Amino acid sequence: MNNDRSIWDYEDIVGRRPIKYLELLSENITGKVQHINATYTGGGVAEILTSLVPLLNGLGIETEWNAIRGDDKFFSITKTFHNALHGSLNGAIDVRSYEHPDVPDGLEKQINELKMKKDIFETYLHWNRINADEMNLDGDFVFMHDPQPAAMIRAKEKGNWIWRCHIDVSDPDLPVWNFLKRFISGYDASVFSAPLFARPDIGTRQFLVPPSIDPLSDKNIELSQSEIDRVLDKHGIFADKPIITQISRFDRLKDLPGTIDAYKLVKKQMDCQLIIAGGVASDDSEGLGVYHEIIEKAGRDPDIHLLLGTPPFTDIEINAFQRASTVIMQKSLREGFGLVVSEGLWKGKPVIGGATGGIPLQILDGVTGYLVHSAEEAAYRITNLLKDPALAKRLGENGREHVRNNFLITRQLRDHLLLMLSL
Amino acid sequence: MNNDRSIWDYEDIVGRRPIKYLELLSENITGKVQHINATYTGGGVAEILTSLVPLLNGLGIETEWNAIRGDDKFFSITKTFHNALHGSLNGAIDVRSYEHPDVPDGLEKQINELKMKKDIFETYLHWNRINADEMNLDGDFVFMHDPQPAAMIRAKEKGNWIWRCHIDVSDPDLPVWNFLKRFISGYDASVFSAPLFARPDIGTRQFLVPPSIDPLSDKNIELSQSEIDRVLDKHGIFADKPIITQISRFDRLKDLPGTIDAYKLVKKQMDCQLIIAGGVASDDSEGLGVYHEIIEKAGRDPDIHLLLGTPPFTDIEINAFQRASTVIMQKSLREGFGLVVSEGLWKGKPVIGGATGGIPLQILDGVTGYLVHSAEEAAYRITNLLKDPALAKRLGENGREHVRNNFLITRQLRDHLLLMLSL
Repeated sequence: MNNDRSIWDYEDIVGRRPIKYLELLSENITGKVQHINATYTGGGVAEILTSLVPLLNGLGIETEWNAIRGDDKFFSITKTFHNALHGSLNGAIDVRSYEHPDVPDGLEKQINELKMKKDIFETYLHWNRINADEMNLDGDFVFMHDPQPAAMIRAKEKGNWIWRCHIDVSDPDLPVWNFLKRFISGYDASVFSAPLFARPDIGTRQFLVPPSIDPLSDKNIELSQSEIDRVLDKHGIFADKPIITQISRFDRLKDLPGTIDAYKLVKKQMDCQLIIAGGVASDDSEGLGVYHEIIEKAGRDPDIHLLLGTPPFTDIEINAFQRASTVIMQKSLREGFGLVVSEGLWKGKPVIGGATGGIPLQILDGVTGYLVHSAEEAAYRITNLLKDPALAKRLGENGREHVRNNFLITRQLRDHLLLMLSL
Repeated sequence: MNNDRSIWDYEDIVGRRPIKYLELLSENITGKVQHINATYTGGGVAEILTSLVPLLNGLGIETEWNAIRGDDKFFSITKTFHNALHGSLNGAIDVRSYEHPDVPDGLEKQINELKMKKDIFETYLHWNRINADEMNLDGDFVFMHDPQPAAMIRAKEKGNWIWRCHIDVSDPDLPVWNFLKRFISGYDASVFSAPLFARPDIGTRQFLVPPSIDPLSDKNIELSQSEIDRVLDKHGIFADKPIITQISRFDRLKDLPGTIDAYKLVKKQMDCQLIIAGGVASDDSEGLGVYHEIIEKAGRDPDIHLLLGTPPFTDIEINAFQRASTVIMQKSLREGFGLVVSEGLWKGKPVIGGATGGIPLQILDGVTGYLVHSAEEAAYRITNLLKDPALAKRLGENGREHVRNNFLITRQLRDHLLLMLSL
């Protein structure tokens, strides 16, 4: 964590005026801010808070950050909630209507199903209660991130509580949503990452705040060529042929198999290599399984570099992989927002991504990269970009400007200040 | 209309980087843009298009603007639609369930009600058909503004059609909404002014684009003190005591009576004067009635200046009234967005407004002005601001920065370009 960064360090990147505006807004905020989420490391939320919290403090706004604790069962349940809210097939809690609900077998199934649901919801509430008891919830603005700590609202005594949703809940699995909604409706406001992610049935004030990347973090800071080379060397990668890279958590929704298929199609026409690199968040009990599946899928191709990183030292390395790449991939099937797209664009690289979640806000098709719907389409776009460096350069430059204007931490900081001033 | 303004004329106001970004985005757009709305003059939509259309053309994007035509009955119906979508009490089409639906009297009422509805919807469709027949709908991006031309979607043959909704349809009168929804759902995308304004049941892609003001239009351009004085003179206003101003269309939803009540309460404590100035849009058959009601309410107080303006010469005058004011009011009960708030803030004036629609996005309570819920609260805030010029100055300066960062035409232009690139 770089706690000593000041907003003025961003002046060269965004200009003087936006920074002065941040100061103006902060001067008008009184009270303490608390951010509460599931984990201090791993995943986009932790990354944003790592940058945002020190900047808020630097602006004179007292800001605390607490991650909740829980056992494996709790985090496995919240992972299921996460997938269920995404409307994902593999995570939804199944509540099918039984064909013969009036025969003993059907009833027995129903009863077991309900018992399981009861246990899930009780475990979730149990850990929310423990965390609420242990934490000092005295903030004037309490930001609760995602479903994991959402039920802590029951302990609210003062302040404005904001539910900050980073996932797409527009088409959720309804039993899970209806369970969580009882808590979410108790907040003073909720915040979503994109207009389409929001729910109509919350009944509180809703705000729109897309997430952002920090251009001065280890993941995004400028690197010299020798630093990039050093990282590639360390991992036995030679930049003697074009590099295609997908950085993402090992998570089924990222479609890493699709990326490998696209790479294999490109490889038939042009020599190239593929880097797949990412971590597994401490609240993600599914990630290791996915990692082993991908190892199998990649087979023995020496040009596929499969890297499982462990924080904190990998941020610079991820940065280097992105900068060493000719094309960045993010072939997700579902995304909360997909900030890794902005990371790639910020490094001046064209990004090819799935047309889902927040990706189309970042990839303007044909301008900053390409939106694709299949491995074949991805392969076609990759091949064209590898053949035409001028095109790749132009899209990359456009992408950097697009991110500068829309997806940097200073913009998100501004939105948070505006939000607090609006409550 | 100032067709000869270039985006570079805005560089002094917003800086070089945002302008370069607009050029970058435009270079990537191919095809023709069409904007279609209800009127060329009067109201926020016409104002925005007056600025936006020439700027789009100046950026090399061929852009046309057409206003639809219709008879008085049509525009009276669309005004009713407008109020009904706002959830307004005085505009909704009444479909109460009759107490005795099985007696002849009740049935007769129901039949008449249904006949009236049928006639309303037929008239609406009739004029939409005429306009679709008469217009050349060959744009690659067709922006339809508000409900009036929404049914023209039935004539769509090519391009991306976007329904641009400027009103708050989050809690509409359902019979009207359900009627219009059939057409709105046929668009490729819909655009709302604030997250809370959107509808969950459209089923097309939704975007968020707040409206904006043009700092170089007659309404907002810098004026010299002598120009301001000349306008005040013309209307027999002397700046020898503080001026409170509400600029708004004569429309029930603007709560002009509430503003007059607030002024009367302030007047008991401090000498001051009130300007109420505004026009009546050509599609607004209700406005003149409201104007006459307000005349009555104002009575014979010589310090209440009630001004009914007629375009085009009043824009500079409205500008001058705002600049001559100590406090700006916008005590609306319902608002689409309430751009007049941004106009006031841009002139460095504190603005007191109703906490409705888009007003809380512009008035950050205690930072750029005050959000109020009653005439008494408004009077309290006005009195404080009249007594404390340093406070008024500080809020005004904050407001100008807030508008510079969020509500200028260059930002909306950017959002439109991003939207087109996202389709």
